[in-house]
Amino acid sequence: MLLMTPGPVAVDERVIRAMNRPAIAHYHPEYFEVFNETTEMLKSIFGTSGDVIILPGSGRVGMEASIVSIADPGDRILCIVSGTFGRWFVQIAERAKCEVKILEGKWGGAINPEEVEKILKEEEFKAVTVVHSETSTGARNPIETIGRICKGHDVLCIVDAISSVGCMHLDMGKMNIDLCVSASQKGIGGIVGLALVGVSERAYKVMEEKKEICQSFALDLRRWRDQFFGHDYPRPYPVIPSTHLVYALDEACKLIVEEGLENRLSRCCKAAQAVRKAIRALGLELFPEEEIASDSLTAVKPPEGISESDIVRTMREKYDVMVGGSVFELKGKLFRISHMGVQASMNYLIPTLAALERTLVDLGYKVEFGRGVGTLIEGI
Amino acid sequence: MLLMTPGPVAVDERVIRAMNRPAIAHYHPEYFEVFNETTEMLKSIFGTSGDVIILPGSGRVGMEASIVSIADPGDRILCIVSGTFGRWFVQIAERAKCEVKILEGKWGGAINPEEVEKILKEEEFKAVTVVHSETSTGARNPIETIGRICKGHDVLCIVDAISSVGCMHLDMGKMNIDLCVSASQKGIGGIVGLALVGVSERAYKVMEEKKEICQSFALDLRRWRDQFFGHDYPRPYPVIPSTHLVYALDEACKLIVEEGLENRLSRCCKAAQAVRKAIRALGLELFPEEEIASDSLTAVKPPEGISESDIVRTMREKYDVMVGGSVFELKGKLFRISHMGVQASMNYLIPTLAALERTLVDLGYKVEFGRGVGTLIEGI
Repeated sequence: MLLMTPGPVAVDERVIRAMNRPAIAHYHPEYFEVFNETTEMLKSIFGTSGDVIILPGSGRVGMEASIVSIADPGDRILCIVSGTFGRWFVQIAERAKCEVKILEGKWGGAINPEEVEKILKEEEFKAVTVVHSETSTGARNPIETIGRICKGHDVLCIVDAISSVGCMHLDMGKMNIDLCVSASQKGIGGIVGLALVGVSERAYKVMEEKKEICQSFALDLRRWRDQFFGHDYPRPYPVIPSTHLVYALDEACKLIVEEGLENRLSRCCKAAQAVRKAIRALGLELFPEEEIASDSLTAVKPPEGISESDIVRTMREKYDVMVGGSVFELKGKLFRISHMGVQASMNYLIPTLAALERTLVDLGYKVEFGRGVGTLIEGI
Repeated sequence: MLLMTPGPVAVDERVIRAMNRPAIAHYHPEYFEVFNETTEMLKSIFGTSGDVIILPGSGRVGMEASIVSIADPGDRILCIVSGTFGRWFVQIAERAKCEVKILEGKWGGAINPEEVEKILKEEEFKAVTVVHSETSTGARNPIETIGRICKGHDVLCIVDAISSVGCMHLDMGKMNIDLCVSASQKGIGGIVGLALVGVSERAYKVMEEKKEICQSFALDLRRWRDQFFGHDYPRPYPVIPSTHLVYALDEACKLIVEEGLENRLSRCCKAAQAVRKAIRALGLELFPEEEIASDSLTAVKPPEGISESDIVRTMREKYDVMVGGSVFELKGKLFRISHMGVQASMNYLIPTLAALERTLVDLGYKVEFGRGVGTLIEGI
C-alpha cells in the first residue's frame, strides 16, 4: 500500500527502524541525550531561538495547548478560518471560555491580510490564530504578513503549521510567530503521536502574565520552561511524550538535517508544482486557487459526475494507493494527494498518478494514459 | 540494560516487533479492525461493558480527561491522597475550577474506607478520586470498598489504575468504578504514549447532564461516544492515538489474552510476594505496610546511611539494571523494583536482586550473597 495521505505520511524506513529497540525509561540519561538532540534539531527546523515542546498527542492537542497556555477566560482571540482545521481553533478557544471573533475567508481561497490589519486596529485581541497550510483545502495562508501585522499590534500570532513544517518555508523568528504548532506525522516525516509546539519568548512572557493558572495540567506549556528546559538531569517531564515516537522523530529530523532543510523545501516545492501541472494535464481542477496552493498536498476537485469517495476507494482497493478523501464540511468536494517528505519523489508520485489515471478511466472519465504521469516526470 | 522501573516496564519483544511496519493511515479500514480488536480486549481486561477509550498521552492525560469530562466548575470532588499520583488529581481538579476536598492518608499506609463513608454522608460530591496502586509509594488502596461506598451515595468513582491494570485484580463492573484510568506502558506491557480510560454508563450519563461543554476539545471523552463508538467506518477520531503504539498495545493485550488474565494476575501476585520476602531476607524494610503492598512494584527503604540515589545509580551504571528511584515529595525515601508483565519472572527478577546485593555491598551494607536471590528463587 502506497501511503499518499496528507498525514500520516509515508516515512523513510530508517524512521521505522529507529523504533526497533527495547523499552527505555524516559528518565534514562541516554534517552535524555536523544530528547535534547531532537529538540535542538526541531528548533532549527522551526527557526526559533525559543523552545520546541514535544507533547504526546496529535496536532489538535498542540493547538489546544497553545490556546490554553496563554489565554484566560474572557480573553479575545481572532480566529482566521478558511478550512476545517482553522475552525478547530474556534472550538478550542470557545471551550476555554475565550471570546472568539471569526474572520472567515473563502475555503480554498486566500485571506486578505488587510482585513486582519483592519480588525486589529479597531479591536483588542490577545492572539490571532491562522493555519499555514490548510490540510483540508490544500490552500496556504500568508503567515509572514499576518505575523508582521500581529507584531505591530502586540498581539500573539498562533500558527497551525501542522502540515507545513518540513515542507514549506517557515521561520518562527523572522515571521514573528509566537506559538507554532506542528505534529510528528506530517511534513517532518515521523510517526503519528506527538504534537510539537514552538514557543517564542514573547509567548512565554504572556504565559507568565496570565491571570489564572492554566486550566490544563497536561497541556500547560509554561510548566515545560519552569520544570524542564534549562534544568539539568534529572528533571521531570510535565507530561511524557512516547520514547519510541521520539526515537522515530529524532531519526526523521536527522533525515532533514542530512538532506539540508533548504534542499528539502525545494524538493517539496518542485514536486508540488509538478503534481499541480499533472493534474491540470488530466483536465482536472485544483480545489484551491493555484497561486496560493499549499506545497504539502494537492487538493483536487473530482470531475463532474464522479464521486470523490469512489476515486479514493478505487485507488485504494484496486491500485493499492491511499490518497486522502475530504473531511467534515468539505465531504465530497475534493480528494487530496500528499507530497510531504519521502512522498515528494518519483517513486511515490509516479505510481500515484498512474493509479489516478487508471481509476478515472475505470469510473468513466476520459484520460489519455501517461498524460499526467508524463507531465509529472517532466516537472519533478 | 534490564529495565525494572515501574513504568515504562520492560516489554515482550513481540510488542516491539508489532511496531516494525510502515506508516498507515489511522482511517485505513484494516487499521480500524486492529483498533476495534484492541478496544475489545481492553474492555475484558478492564472488566467493563462500557467503553475503553485510547487517548494519546501518558497516565496523567487520562486522569485529566476523566475529571474534565464529568466536572463543571464549582463541582465538588473528593480526592483521596496518599502519594504523588493521588495528589495530581487535586491539581487537575483545581485547574478545572472544581472545589476539591482532600482526604489525606499516610503515604505508604492504608486509607480507611470508613472515613470516605463518613465524608460522603455529610457532604455532597460529584466524584471521588482514588489511586489503586500508588506507584510512588508502592501501596494499594481498597478500591472495591470505596467503589461500593461511592455507589451507595450516587457519587462517581474515578480510579487511577495506571500501574494496576494487567497486574492486580480489577473489575470496573463488579467494583463500581465509573472512570478507570490506565496507561499503555505499565501493567498492560505496551509502549509509553497512550492513556486508557474505561468509562461506565453512569459516567457517560453524568457527561450528558454536565451543564457546560467540556473545557477541553482533545480530552472530552463524551465526543468518543457521540462521534466514534457505535458508528461504522468511516468515523472520525476525536483525537488521534498513535497507530504504531496501538499496534504495540494490541500485541500486549494479545499476550494477556493468551496467558489468561487470571494466570497473569497470579504470576504477578506470586512474584510480588517473593520479592517482598527477598527484600526482608536482605534485612531491608518495605516502604508501605506489607499487608497493603501493591503487587505491581515493591518500594524499599534504603538502609540507614545509604542514599537511594546511590543505590539506583550503582545498579544502573555498574550492573546494568535500572530500578526506579523516588520522585517529588518522596525524594530519597525509597527505591522501587517493578514486577509488572514480563518483569514478573525469574529472568528479570533474579538478576535484579543479584545486582541489588552487589550494590548494597559496594555501598557498605552487609549482605550474605545469594540470600535475597535464594529467597526469590524459592518463592517465585
